[in-house]
Amino acid sequence: MDPYKELMNVYDEVSTIGDISSLLGWDQNTYMPRKAAAGRGTQSAFLSKLAHRKITVPRVGSLLERLEAEPLDEVKSAVVREVRKIYTRKTSIPEELEAEIARSEPLSMQAWVDAKQKKDFSIFAPHLERVLELKKQVAEKVGYPEIPYDALLEEYEPYTRTAQVKEVFERLRKRLVPIIERISETQKDEVHIKGEFKPEVQENFYKRILRDMGYDFEAGRLDTTEHPFTIGTGDDTRITTHYYADDPRPALFSCIHEGGHALYEQGFLKENMHTPLGEACSLGIHESQSRMWENLIGRSLSFWKHYYPEIHRIFPALSNIPLERFYRAVNTVRPSLIRVEADEVTYNMHILIRFELEIEIFNGKLGVSEIPGAWNDKYEKYLGIVPENDGVGCLQDIHWSIGAFGYFPTYTLGNLYASQFFDAMKREIDVEGLLENGQLLPVLSWLRKNVHERGKLYPASELVRVVTGRELDESHFIDHVKRKYGNLYGISL
Amino acid sequence: MDPYKELMNVYDEVSTIGDISSLLGWDQNTYMPRKAAAGRGTQSAFLSKLAHRKITVPRVGSLLERLEAEPLDEVKSAVVREVRKIYTRKTSIPEELEAEIARSEPLSMQAWVDAKQKKDFSIFAPHLERVLELKKQVAEKVGYPEIPYDALLEEYEPYTRTAQVKEVFERLRKRLVPIIERISETQKDEVHIKGEFKPEVQENFYKRILRDMGYDFEAGRLDTTEHPFTIGTGDDTRITTHYYADDPRPALFSCIHEGGHALYEQGFLKENMHTPLGEACSLGIHESQSRMWENLIGRSLSFWKHYYPEIHRIFPALSNIPLERFYRAVNTVRPSLIRVEADEVTYNMHILIRFELEIEIFNGKLGVSEIPGAWNDKYEKYLGIVPENDGVGCLQDIHWSIGAFGYFPTYTLGNLYASQFFDAMKREIDVEGLLENGQLLPVLSWLRKNVHERGKLYPASELVRVVTGRELDESHFIDHVKRKYGNLYGISL
Repeated sequence: MDPYKELMNVYDEVSTIGDISSLLGWDQNTYMPRKAAAGRGTQSAFLSKLAHRKITVPRVGSLLERLEAEPLDEVKSAVVREVRKIYTRKTSIPEELEAEIARSEPLSMQAWVDAKQKKDFSIFAPHLERVLELKKQVAEKVGYPEIPYDALLEEYEPYTRTAQVKEVFERLRKRLVPIIERISETQKDEVHIKGEFKPEVQENFYKRILRDMGYDFEAGRLDTTEHPFTIGTGDDTRITTHYYADDPRPALFSCIHEGGHALYEQGFLKENMHTPLGEACSLGIHESQSRMWENLIGRSLSFWKHYYPEIHRIFPALSNIPLERFYRAVNTVRPSLIRVEADEVTYNMHILIRFELEIEIFNGKLGVSEIPGAWNDKYEKYLGIVPENDGVGCLQDIHWSIGAFGYFPTYTLGNLYASQFFDAMKREIDVEGLLENGQLLPVLSWLRKNVHERGKLYPASELVRVVTGRELDESHFIDHVKRKYGNLYGISL
Repeated sequence: MDPYKELMNVYDEVSTIGDISSLLGWDQNTYMPRKAAAGRGTQSAFLSKLAHRKITVPRVGSLLERLEAEPLDEVKSAVVREVRKIYTRKTSIPEELEAEIARSEPLSMQAWVDAKQKKDFSIFAPHLERVLELKKQVAEKVGYPEIPYDALLEEYEPYTRTAQVKEVFERLRKRLVPIIERISETQKDEVHIKGEFKPEVQENFYKRILRDMGYDFEAGRLDTTEHPFTIGTGDDTRITTHYYADDPRPALFSCIHEGGHALYEQGFLKENMHTPLGEACSLGIHESQSRMWENLIGRSLSFWKHYYPEIHRIFPALSNIPLERFYRAVNTVRPSLIRVEADEVTYNMHILIRFELEIEIFNGKLGVSEIPGAWNDKYEKYLGIVPENDGVGCLQDIHWSIGAFGYFPTYTLGNLYASQFFDAMKREIDVEGLLENGQLLPVLSWLRKNVHERGKLYPASELVRVVTGRELDESHFIDHVKRKYGNLYGISL
């Protein structure tokens, strides 16, 4: 058999296993009965081990060697590069280490839940020590170009070194901190949104927006969960949200956010399905899609010029709030403690803090017991506020408990990619004009052609270059913030 | 490693794959988006092939041989017997034949849907020919003690020969036909149930009944589908129903029916999970559980003495219908064309007709083109009615299109087992008294101890003997019918 075809057959099976795992995960978070949890754990572990075994058989290694010696076209060459990447990473981590991680994560997560609830970091600390130790072992096994943290970042933002992220994040921080200070000084009166917003009315309206965005409900669905998420790919890409009957904003923006993720997944080329080109370029690029839809489109005045009359009509509680005030209500900038509730400007400071801490932790400069103190210092320094306890401080996020070090920076990378893509898009199409007329599909078409359909064809940094003609540059985001919030707050930023 | 333990490790993996497949099937019938169907087909086929490969590796054969040479206790010996059964069957069917069946079934099912809709048997006929040919090949590969149909029946009702079923079904037919004729002659005025029965009110009430039955909603759930079903086992056993806003009966009895199936699945011993003893004895025994709850309990006067005041209160449409008339309304015997809508008495005639036809088809006495005529003749002879077209005749059921020959008889076996178990139960506990007081849990306890917890410990015929002290005997069912409908219709049967 043709070695490329044989390799793709293996990848097809591994992808099929991934699709099945996704469904198991979706069910676990939506409809699974409580007592089914133990069995579900067994099922997921079984599939994960199966996928690991299939992609690490020596035959895959020899197929890769043969293909690497051949002249290949751009697509095949990218595919081989990506399979090599997975093969090398997965074969370098001993099965016993993987198993130990799989065993310790649920315990660590449980300890984290407990610690967060009791606002007591000491409950979580020993587990975090263990997770860190295991993740350091992973870094050593996998290898890294400069520092161990590179090996972890690589999992979420491939081909990207810590030093590169650090450079752009430092520039971002230097420019963002004074902007936030300036906005904080000029707080205007707050716009309060109060009243009853029936979940079923919210749902209908958000589904309408999702349809307008181009989300295909015949290849996906919208359900309700505690925390919103997107799962699946291609013809089975499902999203979830969480409704609050006293405020439409959380579900509204999480629907648009998850819709952005889902459009990416629904947008890979059919012919690339079950190949690396039918997968997201990186988590940062994935996040750029959700953030663009949520923030650059969904929180823009143009967008609401079209949709506000309608949401205004269906929710009597908004009857006394004119468009401009509603626009302010969905764009209030205020330093706060909780990342997931932060506005689009201060959000990045939460990420920068975590990123800086993670590097210090992995460089051995910061011990586990020192984390709460360091966390609080940085919040005071960058955002001018100090958490009253670790529950709303260093215990707020699940990520560290499940060993997801290197994940946080992709959120801010997503914001930066989004702004840079958006500026490139605006050079080609009249985005504001389209939004004012409720025409969202041309935006999707641009994203399909420039981002979605390329999948993993290029590494993220190259994709940014190909699409925008430049290296990643935080100026696009900074300029957006200055323009938008300068206008909103009537100040010059 | 201990060979028994090694064998159980293999079985555990195969069971895990089965659990995953169940969830995929559940999702496919409840919430899966339309376009995900093709991908789901790939996923299910992958799992089915994986399970097949795992249980047919030569190592399983040699483990079985070693274990069969050892003295084993009752439990281990039953486990080894059952694994041997699967191993022998699965290894005897060539992978190419399995694949061919997997390929042709979706086409055949599609042709059946089309044929049924157009009431045109000729659309389905060539596909049915092909399915039959393949199933005959399966029978030849698997082998059979007397006739090829034995090999098919074996899949659903293990250790049971066609001749045994034939004998009891013939006796049943001879006793049942005159009873149905007698009842048909003495039709009373029909009790009409009309009005509005809100699905959410129905749902709440049926959930209440399911809880009373002992169904554990923390280890299962109730959803809505086109056709009701039960899926899963142990701590993840889900049921579905279909609500009609103008009649509470279909959803009510399908909930109780599926609840009966689910209680069986939830009732296997935890320590036997992922072994054959944590599985249903046979489809007939499975059906005995659903039928007992649906018909012997759920359609009894004692049951409604307790529940009627409540359903009467929540549904104003029932306000003019006293208990006795409601009891008649859920127990109307009338020959009809559609199996799934038939009452508990005439239902068995539908099965007998299918069973007789299947045997003739497999004996080569009845060609595919002759099926519609033979079908209509039997309906006229046994039930006194003739289908006006094949859509409500021989095309009504999905079974043949998916090659499920040998499945139908398990429905009537279920009815017979149910009556025989029920009589044994009544010798030990005061069932009527309990039902009148809404005490359903003692009934469940009896079933747990006598049927559920035994899983596949015994073949069905032996289980019946162990539990009731006798061979399977249709008299229990006949006596039940005579007693109940004699009273109801005021005649001596």
